[in-house]
Amino acid sequence: MARSRVGLLGASGETGSSILDGLIEDGGFEIIALARPTSLSSPANVAIREKGVELRALDLSSSEDSIVDALAGIDILISAIGPRAQLTQVPLAFAAKKAGIKRFVPCAWAPIVPVGVHRSRDQKEEVFNLVKRLHVPYTIIDIGWWYQFTLPKLPSGKIDYALTIPMKTIPGDGHVLTALTDVRDVGKYVAQVIKDERTLNAMVFVYNELWSMNRVYDLLEKKSGESVRREFTSAQEFEQQITDADIRLNKDQEDVAARQQKVFAQYYLSTFIRGENTPEFARYLGYLDGKQLYPDVKFNTFESYVEEVLNGTGKAAYQDR
Amino acid sequence: MARSRVGLLGASGETGSSILDGLIEDGGFEIIALARPTSLSSPANVAIREKGVELRALDLSSSEDSIVDALAGIDILISAIGPRAQLTQVPLAFAAKKAGIKRFVPCAWAPIVPVGVHRSRDQKEEVFNLVKRLHVPYTIIDIGWWYQFTLPKLPSGKIDYALTIPMKTIPGDGHVLTALTDVRDVGKYVAQVIKDERTLNAMVFVYNELWSMNRVYDLLEKKSGESVRREFTSAQEFEQQITDADIRLNKDQEDVAARQQKVFAQYYLSTFIRGENTPEFARYLGYLDGKQLYPDVKFNTFESYVEEVLNGTGKAAYQDR
Repeated sequence: MARSRVGLLGASGETGSSILDGLIEDGGFEIIALARPTSLSSPANVAIREKGVELRALDLSSSEDSIVDALAGIDILISAIGPRAQLTQVPLAFAAKKAGIKRFVPCAWAPIVPVGVHRSRDQKEEVFNLVKRLHVPYTIIDIGWWYQFTLPKLPSGKIDYALTIPMKTIPGDGHVLTALTDVRDVGKYVAQVIKDERTLNAMVFVYNELWSMNRVYDLLEKKSGESVRREFTSAQEFEQQITDADIRLNKDQEDVAARQQKVFAQYYLSTFIRGENTPEFARYLGYLDGKQLYPDVKFNTFESYVEEVLNGTGKAAYQDR
Repeated sequence: MARSRVGLLGASGETGSSILDGLIEDGGFEIIALARPTSLSSPANVAIREKGVELRALDLSSSEDSIVDALAGIDILISAIGPRAQLTQVPLAFAAKKAGIKRFVPCAWAPIVPVGVHRSRDQKEEVFNLVKRLHVPYTIIDIGWWYQFTLPKLPSGKIDYALTIPMKTIPGDGHVLTALTDVRDVGKYVAQVIKDERTLNAMVFVYNELWSMNRVYDLLEKKSGESVRREFTSAQEFEQQITDADIRLNKDQEDVAARQQKVFAQYYLSTFIRGENTPEFARYLGYLDGKQLYPDVKFNTFESYVEEVLNGTGKAAYQDR
């Protein structure tokens, strides 16, 4: 059987590079990394080409026909573009329809959350709805909460180097389970999902392990020998943070700190208090369960991730980007 | 096993009365018809009470607690309220959560259509999304296009009495299949769906038969012995009708004729031209297929519906309402 030709947007990003590595490791795909014409020579894209991957220019602000041309020969189109660029997928979806893409994987790659909670998620949903109005075959893949955003700092400061965004508080009572994934494992799941007819025109939830924040703190304390102060933040306090952020954003829409405060408060409420980032809630929303579909994927355990961070060989998310 | 207690909103409506009859016929439910306090003594509601059904007051403009009280003892809540009242389901959803409803069937009851085509559908989707944010167990049931809106007039005028909204044109080339259902059969499916654990937290598409408009015209001509003039309307003409309606609605939001023109043009495009009201497209959107789930439901065939209309025993939709 001829190998499927997979086009990947955002291959130099955090999620995209995991997907790229997963597809390369699988070996069953011809991969075409699609990059902005202006960044074809960036170090990240040069590195992608050095992996033996075809690099092709794609300008999402160009005409539909030129986007269609850039998609020539691609069977499966995967989008892992940045959070602020979601709506650039609108012309991409129209072009995917015209190009006869056999499976479009629009940008999801997030914890499970219902519609109407996050503005950024809702933009993704807008794209999903457009894809469906266009009758483009699709797969939506969500991946849970990253290991890389799960740990708090240690008093010694020895794991600060690995924590781009450390946990600063325990949301709620810390007992709620949430699905965690090492971002570096995402690509392994994607390689399985896109070969699988069961996931065509479906939503799939892939994740590594279920942890509560209390158990995360327990593990880190046990492995490090240090004691980590536990501060708990209630749902009401997060609601108040959202209200405060809205007031600031009303004054200045470009207030980045306010937006980040709002996004994280919404996520903490959903993921660590309402318990929405779980296989049960995903099934409730209509997702297929990746654990049932792919029980044999070899992923990095959370425990070994913590060991890696403690022994100094960890890597902060977004470090190179 | 104790019979489930089913609360039904809109039991006197066209879809609601079909649901009521289906649940009564099934015999497996204790039924509570929920009606506005001001209409408890209406002829329709008196007739419902005469069927031995409990009639209970529910005021959706009252406080959440009083709505919760009105839902006391109800396991399954079914909403079949009017098209203009969709957003009154917002307080209903909050109350359903508080009352611990085990399955909420919010108002869908329509042909399959993706999000972002119809304003009225999108209001329903808003309610579905709220239900999911509240984690209320749900089932969404769509039912295809009604037999009762499918036939054109005959030159003799003999079936005019049965056609509340006759087909005035054949959308597209008339070859596209669409799923048709006799509105009077809806309740039979609902009785099956709400007993079925497979449909909990899922979307279900139930329908009777697949027909193209050309075959509908062929059948009517053959059965009546009359010849029906076939006028075809293209997608572009419907798009133009929508544009024209939008211009009129911009001037006067209450222009009922413009709104009806827009709604029907959107439906004709979706149902009879893009072919969205089919089991295939429903599966693509994530629906379970009622034909596979309930192959043994005895429904009225389209042919026997046509015979009924021709022999003068048909009934126009909305005739008594």
